[in-house]
Amino acid sequence: MVYAIHEMVVRGAPAIGAAAAFGLALAASRSKASSVGEMQEELKTAAAALLASRPTAVNLAWGVRRMLAASSGPVGSPAGLCQLMVDEAQQIADEDVQTNLHMAEIGAQLIADGDTVIHHCNTGSLATVDWGTALGVIHMAHQQGKRVHVLVDETRPRLQGSRLTAWELEQYGIPYEIISDGAAGYFLRTGQAQKVFFGADRVAANGDVANKVGSYMLALAANSNGVPVYSVFPTSTVDLSLANGDLIPIEEREEEEVLGIEYKGQRIAPAGAHARNPAFDLTPHSLLTGLVTENGIAYPPFDMNLARLMRVNPDSSRKQ
Amino acid sequence: MVYAIHEMVVRGAPAIGAAAAFGLALAASRSKASSVGEMQEELKTAAAALLASRPTAVNLAWGVRRMLAASSGPVGSPAGLCQLMVDEAQQIADEDVQTNLHMAEIGAQLIADGDTVIHHCNTGSLATVDWGTALGVIHMAHQQGKRVHVLVDETRPRLQGSRLTAWELEQYGIPYEIISDGAAGYFLRTGQAQKVFFGADRVAANGDVANKVGSYMLALAANSNGVPVYSVFPTSTVDLSLANGDLIPIEEREEEEVLGIEYKGQRIAPAGAHARNPAFDLTPHSLLTGLVTENGIAYPPFDMNLARLMRVNPDSSRKQ
Repeated sequence: MVYAIHEMVVRGAPAIGAAAAFGLALAASRSKASSVGEMQEELKTAAAALLASRPTAVNLAWGVRRMLAASSGPVGSPAGLCQLMVDEAQQIADEDVQTNLHMAEIGAQLIADGDTVIHHCNTGSLATVDWGTALGVIHMAHQQGKRVHVLVDETRPRLQGSRLTAWELEQYGIPYEIISDGAAGYFLRTGQAQKVFFGADRVAANGDVANKVGSYMLALAANSNGVPVYSVFPTSTVDLSLANGDLIPIEEREEEEVLGIEYKGQRIAPAGAHARNPAFDLTPHSLLTGLVTENGIAYPPFDMNLARLMRVNPDSSRKQ
Repeated sequence: MVYAIHEMVVRGAPAIGAAAAFGLALAASRSKASSVGEMQEELKTAAAALLASRPTAVNLAWGVRRMLAASSGPVGSPAGLCQLMVDEAQQIADEDVQTNLHMAEIGAQLIADGDTVIHHCNTGSLATVDWGTALGVIHMAHQQGKRVHVLVDETRPRLQGSRLTAWELEQYGIPYEIISDGAAGYFLRTGQAQKVFFGADRVAANGDVANKVGSYMLALAANSNGVPVYSVFPTSTVDLSLANGDLIPIEEREEEEVLGIEYKGQRIAPAGAHARNPAFDLTPHSLLTGLVTENGIAYPPFDMNLARLMRVNPDSSRKQ
């Protein structure tokens, strides 16, 4: 599971939260520990490896912490602890489905019939356990009968937009066109898009959003042209321990992700070229119109209103 | 030549200006016309085909118009007209080298020792006849002994940054790293770049710049973080007939340029996917710090100061 998360076989903040939980269930299932204490130690080792697999999305740490908390409960045997781990992971996955569905219903109100929206990265079923965050909102609006057209940021370097989001939209029958990330500004400036939606990998207490690299420039372009920008995420993505987004660690990934691109079978970059590859960037809350969660939509002032949403559901607040 | 310009075998605003001129010289050389008048008619037909090959860069129209003006001069024979066409095209190419050298020297003053600059698209020797525009400025600063580091926007969809600019920087021995276009905002927001340079395909009278798609979002991100943005171009790129940039036609190219991207030998986009592919966008003059030409640097108010620069050299002004 560490490999799957690091190599992005599983990616998307909510999906890696649930995957990490199942990683610990897997560790328990494979354990040969002869005592509960021994298995708990093994789980801590597995947790540390999972936590180190990717740094930015807080859902990963959230899922691992929740599993470790469950593992410290009273159980009589290693087999009992193992079952507890499997049940808790399944519970996390099941909750994600419900959480996403709530978010989608709440967020779909923001989409008007006939809207063209720009979407960054992938935030649908392939990024969550089932329904999705930002793409769930779009999917729900479509399901409600609203005509919605999506301009899909291809989302370099890993191309989650053209690879995953375009594929999902094909399945849902939602009309879309792929655009290069740098073209979003053209469509926003010429009035060809009415809203911007993306997910989040970690949200600070003041509403600053760390998300897939390119989100910041997209939000800037939308904001400069009076187009509303919404970030959609479960409350498990909020990290109230961080006062602002500059405290969120930004993962830099292998340069091959940038350099390995090919066209007509040929690598594009010169042999020996180097790259920088920050996988995320920070969108300051001042550029955001609203933050959509399963507990409602937070509007400015975000620090106050986000904290209020975190308390709406005492259960999800406790999980922090 | 029409094919070469349309398919971007030759690209870069100054290069296609000179290439179009040689296209007319070629038409004259291949002509079997038995009179000057007949050859002039053929040249007009060739000029119309060249003008239609790409719509955005004004240098194309500038080069064609200058050749047609030359072709209407007094000559005694088809052979004489043919020689005149070859000489005028060569003159345009030679002037481009000198113009670029002046621009590079003028612009290099803007770069401080130790600067990291972000560069968009390709504006070097592969985009001009010899020295380059924005990349010429960077090359000159390097040649003057200044330490300059370049973050190279890969420039989707055609990847002129990772394909051409990276290659040129390798030849010049200038240190660089390729970044995905969406990552520029990260480097600008975190203070890792001191200046932004790009070229121009057409500049309106008010200083609005049409340039490779993505330039607008880059300029926005730089501007929002107090990082100066310079557009570098010869005065032949200025179109004083257009009051503002919204009057500049923006070319939309084949969707395959967006969809054809591959990774590890596989196409990324789903079969049957669609794309939008605007090749250029408009950067409003309010986002620009200065406009670097062979006649000097224009600062705001651009309408006044750009017009002044256009008059500095009566010869280049007349060419408009």
